[in-house]
Amino acid sequence: MLTRERNELLVRSDHDTLMGRLLRRYWVPALLAEELPEPDCPPVRVKLLGEQLIALRDSDGRLGLLDEFCAHRGVSLFFGRNEECGLRCSYHGWKFDVDGNCVDMPSEPDESNFKDRVRLKSYPAVERGGIVWAYMGPEEHRPPLPELEWAALPAERRFVSKRLQETNWVQAMEGGIDSSHVSFTHRYDIAEDPMHAGTAGLAYIKADRHPRFEVAESDGGLLIGARRNTGEDDEYYWRITQWLMPWYTIIPPFGTHNPLGAHAWVPIDDEHCWAWSINYHPTRALRADELDSMRAGEGIHVEYVPGTFRPKANRDNDYLIDREAQRQKKTFSGVAGISAQDFSLQESMGVIVDRTKERLGTSDAGIITARRRLLRAAQLLADKGETPPGIAVESQRVRSASLLLPADEAFHVGARDALRAEPGTEFVSI
Amino acid sequence: MLTRERNELLVRSDHDTLMGRLLRRYWVPALLAEELPEPDCPPVRVKLLGEQLIALRDSDGRLGLLDEFCAHRGVSLFFGRNEECGLRCSYHGWKFDVDGNCVDMPSEPDESNFKDRVRLKSYPAVERGGIVWAYMGPEEHRPPLPELEWAALPAERRFVSKRLQETNWVQAMEGGIDSSHVSFTHRYDIAEDPMHAGTAGLAYIKADRHPRFEVAESDGGLLIGARRNTGEDDEYYWRITQWLMPWYTIIPPFGTHNPLGAHAWVPIDDEHCWAWSINYHPTRALRADELDSMRAGEGIHVEYVPGTFRPKANRDNDYLIDREAQRQKKTFSGVAGISAQDFSLQESMGVIVDRTKERLGTSDAGIITARRRLLRAAQLLADKGETPPGIAVESQRVRSASLLLPADEAFHVGARDALRAEPGTEFVSI
Amino acid sequence: MLTRERNELLVRSDHDTLMGRLLRRYWVPALLAEELPEPDCPPVRVKLLGEQLIALRDSDGRLGLLDEFCAHRGVSLFFGRNEECGLRCSYHGWKFDVDGNCVDMPSEPDESNFKDRVRLKSYPAVERGGIVWAYMGPEEHRPPLPELEWAALPAERRFVSKRLQETNWVQAMEGGIDSSHVSFTHRYDIAEDPMHAGTAGLAYIKADRHPRFEVAESDGGLLIGARRNTGEDDEYYWRITQWLMPWYTIIPPFGTHNPLGAHAWVPIDDEHCWAWSINYHPTRALRADELDSMRAGEGIHVEYVPGTFRPKANRDNDYLIDREAQRQKKTFSGVAGISAQDFSLQESMGVIVDRTKERLGTSDAGIITARRRLLRAAQLLADKGETPPGIAVESQRVRSASLLLPADEAFHVGARDALRAEPGTEFVSI
Repeated sequence: MLTRERNELLVRSDHDTLMGRLLRRYWVPALLAEELPEPDCPPVRVKLLGEQLIALRDSDGRLGLLDEFCAHRGVSLFFGRNEECGLRCSYHGWKFDVDGNCVDMPSEPDESNFKDRVRLKSYPAVERGGIVWAYMGPEEHRPPLPELEWAALPAERRFVSKRLQETNWVQAMEGGIDSSHVSFTHRYDIAEDPMHAGTAGLAYIKADRHPRFEVAESDGGLLIGARRNTGEDDEYYWRITQWLMPWYTIIPPFGTHNPLGAHAWVPIDDEHCWAWSINYHPTRALRADELDSMRAGEGIHVEYVPGTFRPKANRDNDYLIDREAQRQKKTFSGVAGISAQDFSLQESMGVIVDRTKERLGTSDAGIITARRRLLRAAQLLADKGETPPGIAVESQRVRSASLLLPADEAFHVGARDALRAEPGTEFVSI
Repeated sequence: MLTRERNELLVRSDHDTLMGRLLRRYWVPALLAEELPEPDCPPVRVKLLGEQLIALRDSDGRLGLLDEFCAHRGVSLFFGRNEECGLRCSYHGWKFDVDGNCVDMPSEPDESNFKDRVRLKSYPAVERGGIVWAYMGPEEHRPPLPELEWAALPAERRFVSKRLQETNWVQAMEGGIDSSHVSFTHRYDIAEDPMHAGTAGLAYIKADRHPRFEVAESDGGLLIGARRNTGEDDEYYWRITQWLMPWYTIIPPFGTHNPLGAHAWVPIDDEHCWAWSINYHPTRALRADELDSMRAGEGIHVEYVPGTFRPKANRDNDYLIDREAQRQKKTFSGVAGISAQDFSLQESMGVIVDRTKERLGTSDAGIITARRRLLRAAQLLADKGETPPGIAVESQRVRSASLLLPADEAFHVGARDALRAEPGTEFVSI
Repeated sequence: MLTRERNELLVRSDHDTLMGRLLRRYWVPALLAEELPEPDCPPVRVKLLGEQLIALRDSDGRLGLLDEFCAHRGVSLFFGRNEECGLRCSYHGWKFDVDGNCVDMPSEPDESNFKDRVRLKSYPAVERGGIVWAYMGPEEHRPPLPELEWAALPAERRFVSKRLQETNWVQAMEGGIDSSHVSFTHRYDIAEDPMHAGTAGLAYIKADRHPRFEVAESDGGLLIGARRNTGEDDEYYWRITQWLMPWYTIIPPFGTHNPLGAHAWVPIDDEHCWAWSINYHPTRALRADELDSMRAGEGIHVEYVPGTFRPKANRDNDYLIDREAQRQKKTFSGVAGISAQDFSLQESMGVIVDRTKERLGTSDAGIITARRRLLRAAQLLADKGETPPGIAVESQRVRSASLLLPADEAFHVGARDALRAEPGTEFVSI
C-alpha cells in the first residue's frame, strides 16, 4: 500500500507535479504515425500528460506538436487550415509553423511587428517505429531518440496499435508489470491458444500453477522473473518480463515462432491513458495472417468503437461479459480477449485506485519495486537534477525471455545475454 | 421548512453520518431475491447507503453481501467466479466466502499465512418476502428479521418490484407519506379505475375534496389519517396511511377485494434511491390478471428501460408527458401511471430538494412529524444509544385501513384493531 | 487580455454578481413568442441569467414568467395545469397567476389565510417582435419596452430564431462584435453567395483583404468600422457594425435588396447562452424564398437537432467538419454555414475562455472597448446607481450600414444619418 500522499505523487502528471517533471524527461509516444498520413493532412488533437495539443505534418512533411489553442483568442487549431508550411487559425488567420513561430498575422497591419513577439507552445516531434514521439521537457535535456527494439525494427517486423483506457496510467502499467495474474485472468485463453500448442513453456505453466516471483533492477527499470519447477531438481523454468522506465513493458511469447509483445502506458491526463500495444519479431517480417488477426483486435490488440480508439467492449456495456462462457471455463472472468480481460479489471478498480487500501503480497514485488523506483527517480531529479534511469539508449536495448536456468543461478545473471536486444539476433523463448 | 443544517442531517446516509448510523440499525431491502436466482449464479453489484457491495448466492445457496472490491488490489468482484462456495477474484484468484473470509490465495506461497489475515467487509443477508435483506450495522445490535405483513406472507399473496429513483431517498419517502396529493396528482386515475368502481370510499372521496389530516404516533412510526365528511353528522370516513421507521409506507386500497400497497424507500446513495413497491393481500393469492398487470408496470409498479430498473418514463424524456391527455383530464399532470406521476414530480424538485425554501401547511403534518421522528431517533441513538422505533417486530405488524368512525372518536383509537396485522385475518377497507 | 478577476466580473451573471445586476436592468429576450402559441398552452421551462423559470400564457392571453418551482414543496410547475387564468401545481393543487399570486390553495382549510401570504417570484413579460421579453430587475427601474428596429417592425418584415450555444454569453457576443474574422472564417461563403454577387461591397472586400478597424462610442454602445481602400485616394469603403448594450449586434448586408442581420447573446447560465438571430428589412416584407431558406437554417440561422434548439452540427460531432471542403476552399474551416462556422470556433475556446492568455491586437479594438464599457457600466451602477447606456429607447433606434465616405471624414460622423433607424426609411448598404 501507499500513503495517500505518495499515491498522489505517483499518479499525477501535470507539468507542475513531481512525476510530471520526471515523465517530461523522456520521449513520449504521442500518436500513431498513420494518424498523420501525409503532408498537409488534417491536424489531430492530442492530449498528453494533461496538456491539450495539436499534431500536424506540414507541407514539407515536418512534424509539429503545438498548443491546441491559438495564441490570439484561444480558438482550437483543430479547425485550422494546414497549408503552405504552417497551420492557419480559422478565426483571424494567424499562422504558425511546426516550431510554434507565428509566420503570418493578416489581421494586423503589415508594419506591426506584433507577429514576431507571438509564439505558440511547441514540442519537438519525430516519427519512429510507426509512432510520432514528442519531447515535452526542457530543451537542454532532450535525450537521444528511443532505441527500444520494436521502435528500431523495419516496419514489416512490427505491428503497433493504441487503445483508450479510462483509468490513470499507473494502474494500467501495474497491470503490465503484474505477471502473477496471467495464471488466473488469462488461464483459459493461454491454455487453448493454438499458437502456444506444443511449447515447453506452456507445459511448465500447466504443471506448476504456483510460480515464485523474483525482481531484479536493470539499468533502465526492472526484470520480473516468474520461476516454475520443471520436474528436474537442478533447473527451473523462468519467464522474465522487462519493465523499462517510465512506462514500458515487454512480455515473452511461447516459442520463438511467435512475436514478442510490448506495451507503453502513457498518461492522457490523470484519469485516462493510452495503452500502446506492439507485437514484433526481431528477425522476420510478421505474416499476413498475424497482421490480419492483430488488425482484427485479437491478442493484445482490441476491436474499437468505430471512429474511435475506445474498445468495443467497454465500461458502458460491462465489457460484453458472457457469464455462460465464464461458467464453461472458456474465459476466466467472462470477458473475451487478453486485452479486455486486463483493462476491464483495471477500470473496475476506479479511475484512480485507492492504494491506501491494498493488501500486497509477495507476488506484488514487481509493482512495489516499480513504484518505488519511479518515485525515487522523480525525487532525485527534483532534489539533485539526477538523470533518470531508462533515458540512456543502451538501457533501452532489452528483450524479455523465457528459458531454463540452473537451479543455483540467479535469473538475471543466467539470462543476461537473452535479455539483451542485439539487432538481428534470434531471441530466446521456449 | 428545515434549516440547511437539519436538511443535511436528514438526507445524508453514509456510514459516518448521524442518519447513516440510524439506518444501519434496521434490515435493509437490498435486492430482489430473483436477481440471485440459484446457487453459483452471477454476482450482482448493489449500492446501499453509499457503500458499493456485491451480492452472491454460493454453491450451498447461502447469501452474501460483500465489499465489491477485492481486498488485494481493489478489482471489482463483479468479474469474479462464483463457484465452490465462494467468489474468486478474476485478477489473482483470491477467493472469499459469504462471510468475507479469504478461503484461498493461490498467488501466495502455501506456507504463507497471509490469507488468514485478510478479510473482506461482509454483511449478513437473508431472503424473506421475495427480497434479499442486509444488515449493515454493528453485529451486537442485529435485530430480529423483519415482520412486516407483506414480508411474512406466502409468496403467492404478494408481488414485489423495485425501481430506480433519481433523487435522495427522503423526498421519495415524503411522497409516500403525503396523502394530500392523491386528490390532485392522481385524481383522474383513481376516479376512473374500474377496480375502485362502486366502493364507498371512492364515493366519499369524490364528494369531499378537502380532507382534513391528522397525525398520531404509533410504536414504530406514524399514522396519517385523512378525514372526510360522509353526509352524516355523527361519522367520518377515514383513510389511514401507515409510516413505519425508517422508510416504509402502507396505503389502503378501495375495498378489500383489492390488494394493499406498500413501499420502501431505500438510499442507494445520497442522490439515488430504490423505490420498492409491494402489492399484497393478507388472505388470498393474487390473481393471474392482477399479477399480469403488475408485471406490466401498472398501478404502483412501472415499465422499465429494458435491462434496467430505470423507468421507461424518465427525466430524459420528460416522463413521456402527454399535454393532450392533461388537457382532457385523463391525467392531472399529463404523466401516465400512479407511480410515474409521483416520481416525475419528486425528481422535478431536484436531486436533493432545498427544504429551506418550503412553505409547509397543515396538510404537511405527516411529513413534518416523520422528519422530526427520524432526526430525534438518530440523535437519541447517537447521544444515548437508545434503540430506535420500528425495530421491535411487534411494531412492524401493522396495516393501513379505510373505514367509517364515529365523529367523536380519535381515528387512531377507533381504528386500533383495523391497524393491527393479525396473520390470516381480513383487513378493513371500504 | 483581462486579469482573472476582471474576467470573472465580466462573465458571471447570477443575480448577486456585478454584471448580473447590470443585465437585470434591461429587457431580456426570454423565448420565442411561438413557443407559447395560444392561451392555456403548455408552460415552457426557461433558464435565464442562472434563474430557472417557467413561462406561460394564461386563459386571457396574459404572459407570465414565474419561478419554475412551486412555493409549497418545490415541485416543477412544468407539470402544472395551465387553466382558468393560472398555473396549478400537479402535486397539491396550489395555483398561481401570472403575477405570482397564489390564487388557490385547496390542500389547506378554506378559513386559512395561508394562501394570501404565499407568493411566487414573477417577472413582467411582454411580447414584441416575435419574442417574449422579461424584465428581471427592480420594479422601480423597469425601462420602456425595447425599441430596436427589428422588434418594432411588422411581423412580415422579420424572421427570428434562437439557438443554444454551449459557452458563456460574453465569448459568443465577442464573436458578434468581431468584424475582422469575416475575411477568414467566412471568406469562401461570402465570396460565393449569389445574393452578394455584383455588389460594390463584395468587390471592395475582395480587393482589400486588410481592413483597418476603428471604434467609436455611440449613446447605447459602440460603432465598429472596418475601412477598406476603394482604389480612389479620396474615399474609403466602410462597413459599420453596431453593438448595443448589453448584448445586441447589427450587421450590414451587401446591398439593400438583402435584409440586415442582428443578434442578441443572452445568458442562460454562465456556461450556456441563447444566440438569437434576426433577419429584417426595414421597408419590405421578407420574400417566401428568403423565409424558406431562413427556416431551413441557412445564413445566420441553423438546422436543429429535432425537438431542440441545439444545432445539428455541434460539439459532439465536431460540427460535421468536412476536411475535403476545407482543402478545396469551399469553406475556410471545413464547417458549413455562417452560423456554425462562428459557434464551432467559439465553443472550441472552452466553455469560459481564459482571457488571461489572450494576445489582442489592433483588430480587437471593438472587443476591448465593449468589455470595458460593460464593466464600467456595471461598476457605475453598483457605485452610484447610474442608469446604464442602451436603456433609453432613443439609443436603440440604430442600424448598421456600409457605404463610401470621404477619406478625411470620421466614419461615425460621415455615416451618422445612415446609422439612425428612422421608421419606414430605406437603409444604406452597398
